[in-house]
Amino acid sequence: MTGGHIGLLGGGVIGGGWAARFLLNGHDVVLFDPDPEAPRKVGEVLANARRANAKLTNAPWPAEGSLRIVTEVEAAIEGATFVQESAPERLELKQKLFAAASRVAGADVVFGSSTSGLLPTEMQRDMVHPERLVVGHPFNPVYLMPLVEVCGGAATSESTKQRAAEIYAGIGMHPLMLSKEIDGFVADRLMEALWREALWLVNDGVATAAEIDDAMRFGPGLRWSFMGTFLIYRIAGGEAGMRHFMAQFGPALKWPWTKLMDVPELTDELLDTICAQSDAQVDEQTPGMSIRELEALRDDCLVEVMHGLRNRGFAAGKTLADFEQTLFDRGHRLSADIDVTGPIRIYDRMVPNEWVDYNGHTNDSRYMQITSEAGDKFMRLIGVDEAYLQSGCSYYTVESHLNFIAQSHAGDHLYVTAQLMSHDPKRFHIFTTVRRVDDDSVVATAEHMMLHVDSKAGKSSPASAALQAKLAEIAAHHDLLPRPSQAGRAIAQPRT
Amino acid sequence: MTGGHIGLLGGGVIGGGWAARFLLNGHDVVLFDPDPEAPRKVGEVLANARRANAKLTNAPWPAEGSLRIVTEVEAAIEGATFVQESAPERLELKQKLFAAASRVAGADVVFGSSTSGLLPTEMQRDMVHPERLVVGHPFNPVYLMPLVEVCGGAATSESTKQRAAEIYAGIGMHPLMLSKEIDGFVADRLMEALWREALWLVNDGVATAAEIDDAMRFGPGLRWSFMGTFLIYRIAGGEAGMRHFMAQFGPALKWPWTKLMDVPELTDELLDTICAQSDAQVDEQTPGMSIRELEALRDDCLVEVMHGLRNRGFAAGKTLADFEQTLFDRGHRLSADIDVTGPIRIYDRMVPNEWVDYNGHTNDSRYMQITSEAGDKFMRLIGVDEAYLQSGCSYYTVESHLNFIAQSHAGDHLYVTAQLMSHDPKRFHIFTTVRRVDDDSVVATAEHMMLHVDSKAGKSSPASAALQAKLAEIAAHHDLLPRPSQAGRAIAQPRT
Repeated sequence: MTGGHIGLLGGGVIGGGWAARFLLNGHDVVLFDPDPEAPRKVGEVLANARRANAKLTNAPWPAEGSLRIVTEVEAAIEGATFVQESAPERLELKQKLFAAASRVAGADVVFGSSTSGLLPTEMQRDMVHPERLVVGHPFNPVYLMPLVEVCGGAATSESTKQRAAEIYAGIGMHPLMLSKEIDGFVADRLMEALWREALWLVNDGVATAAEIDDAMRFGPGLRWSFMGTFLIYRIAGGEAGMRHFMAQFGPALKWPWTKLMDVPELTDELLDTICAQSDAQVDEQTPGMSIRELEALRDDCLVEVMHGLRNRGFAAGKTLADFEQTLFDRGHRLSADIDVTGPIRIYDRMVPNEWVDYNGHTNDSRYMQITSEAGDKFMRLIGVDEAYLQSGCSYYTVESHLNFIAQSHAGDHLYVTAQLMSHDPKRFHIFTTVRRVDDDSVVATAEHMMLHVDSKAGKSSPASAALQAKLAEIAAHHDLLPRPSQAGRAIAQPRT
Repeated sequence: MTGGHIGLLGGGVIGGGWAARFLLNGHDVVLFDPDPEAPRKVGEVLANARRANAKLTNAPWPAEGSLRIVTEVEAAIEGATFVQESAPERLELKQKLFAAASRVAGADVVFGSSTSGLLPTEMQRDMVHPERLVVGHPFNPVYLMPLVEVCGGAATSESTKQRAAEIYAGIGMHPLMLSKEIDGFVADRLMEALWREALWLVNDGVATAAEIDDAMRFGPGLRWSFMGTFLIYRIAGGEAGMRHFMAQFGPALKWPWTKLMDVPELTDELLDTICAQSDAQVDEQTPGMSIRELEALRDDCLVEVMHGLRNRGFAAGKTLADFEQTLFDRGHRLSADIDVTGPIRIYDRMVPNEWVDYNGHTNDSRYMQITSEAGDKFMRLIGVDEAYLQSGCSYYTVESHLNFIAQSHAGDHLYVTAQLMSHDPKRFHIFTTVRRVDDDSVVATAEHMMLHVDSKAGKSSPASAALQAKLAEIAAHHDLLPRPSQAGRAIAQPRT
């Protein structure tokens, strides 16, 4: 997509979410929305997205793209390399938008629609080159949720679907390719089914909105964040597998455990009940929180859940880990000609909330963590790569000394510089300094002695000639640097 | 519940899960199950539970209770202070069990039933003192999932419901009190509604089991782990709130976005399709994993999600944090008379998987973490409690020195001892040693210099007289101990 921009049609919560995701991934965006409030609304979503994504990953994001909001469809489409539509859910409106846009766009430009349930065959009806349209149904907030359902219509080409999937995957999403066109696709049908039952429970006075939400989030919802209903049931079936589970619980499908045969009438009375219960729920669970604060809480929880799942490399955590790897790979290519003549700025990191301890500032162990990670980056810089690790060789930390000089707090942007103090064939001694980006003030220092180990032989060993050469190259510069005052200290009580 | 045991009826996946939760919380358990395989099955669930709960929290669990498995109902009930039934879902069977047990149990013993959907009014029909029965519907795995739905029948007393809720909360669960008796209660109705729609999607060839699961776990399931459908929709409605959301999306309830009016017939053909798709899903998403391994993966993901949410103090994360606080409170009471005459064993910890880095052993920064946490425990020991912290005073780490001596691996049980090296009114110098429980071998050492700070005044200050006295008391013993060889070292390259 080099050279062109992303054309977006519609700047509501969903369109604004797409704008944020594309911008943070370095794409320029031109967004069509005739609403004079659109710039404010998109700006708010973008602010949420910047905040959440800074917490989501420490991987090197590209420079943010540029955003232009226009009031003519054509201005958003001309020169676009990809178009995503997020207009209100009215078929005629979407048909008109796609028809108009299709006359302006290049013949190879793919169109994605954010519809939650309208059929692509109907939406592409009046387009020039209708084979270019595909549904790309995202979930709110678009800048964090990985899922995008990809579904073609009767006229959609296979290459359009593949191209759309590539584009979505390239901005960190998980495209789910649907082979059959159906109202509501898959996720919304599941959500609707649950939602109808929830409305019945309120309608019949069985449970309140808050109770229903609690029944989800303290129960099955916890599991659904990483395994769907089929795998969960299969595991519950034990060694005997899915057939056993179906034999055991299939009959329960005939029991009156749902009330799905009808839709409750949304009478004024039911609406009043739902709204009053919703107010009471917010008062109880999240007292005093505005919608903005609730959005931030939702985003923070999403980040936490994805971070947790990343530790397992599973489900949405794998999507995130894979995406971070591509960001790192791109970042490494950029850092190939890093300047090693002075202390090397080797690591950047925002302090996440969970690093703050009961004292209200970053826990001391986090400075060991980030300087150790900075040491890993230094090792990568001198040539300890995947192949080297696969050979069984690596450097292990044998001794560390830290000085804690000032405090840092959640949201602080820190960076680490590394200075090579000395080295020999089996060791190197590195001194790292953690500073605040704002004012370059020093927060902590840490020096580490690293020992080269051949883990297959189970003992220390000399590093490869290439590594030693790279260390020597850096040492030629760093030997000229002043010795940091905290280097080589021993811990002792001052004489009193 | 002092003195008595927990009586369990049924030792399948759910009964075994209850056994594990009660045992790990220090209760003795007598479990009735006539199945000769019951000891093996319960043992497997218990092994899973021990493994998962060791990862779930570092708070001090009480000593595990004792388990006895019996083949007569009466042997499980006599002397029980609480009874939980988890027999197969057959009303007559449960009625018989409760009737028999109610004749043996003390008149004040509360009975909980794990039924997923049978009515308590019917289950309590033949009991002596039927007011003692309540539904306490848990979710699999019982030893991790917080939700338990509490629902009384027509004869159930209010005090029975309250007592059951207290017992469940006391073992770390989130009791959801239901005011109205209904088949399937709340969570199962929602799960069933979604499950029926999922079966239709498979039946109609719209999506496979794997695709449906992906539509959940990469999409709405992520959100449902911390917010239910009502709050999620309310936030999506924006500033205008719930009424706006209902006005905007209410009409969609009339659209054909679900197929809930009927239950698909579980023909052999549909069963074959579901089982084949389930096999294919496991092959693709979790290749080669046995049910045991899938259970461990599920548990690990649950732990991660709850840890993540604990960082926000929200939803299941708040349940966990509150539970840990009670464990810590109990643990503190127990540690009041800790032996300080030698190095103080102050901290125990299993190495979780995620501490292992690319070198295959515990990452160096984790030794800073656990010795820092051991330092926190030492501070608590000398009297730095919540009240002291509230006064604005605490000790901050100003300097640390670590020696990494051997490696540890996932699952290793480590402990930390603390030796007070020196102290003055504003400082103390502590030397910590990390050892393996197996053989007492040293894995790492770390010494920390701690400075007493008055954060309101923004500068160092003398510790309270009580703290200084406690330090002096410990020093009187520790001054006699040999000086560890790693104390007071400075980092330097050996001369070559």
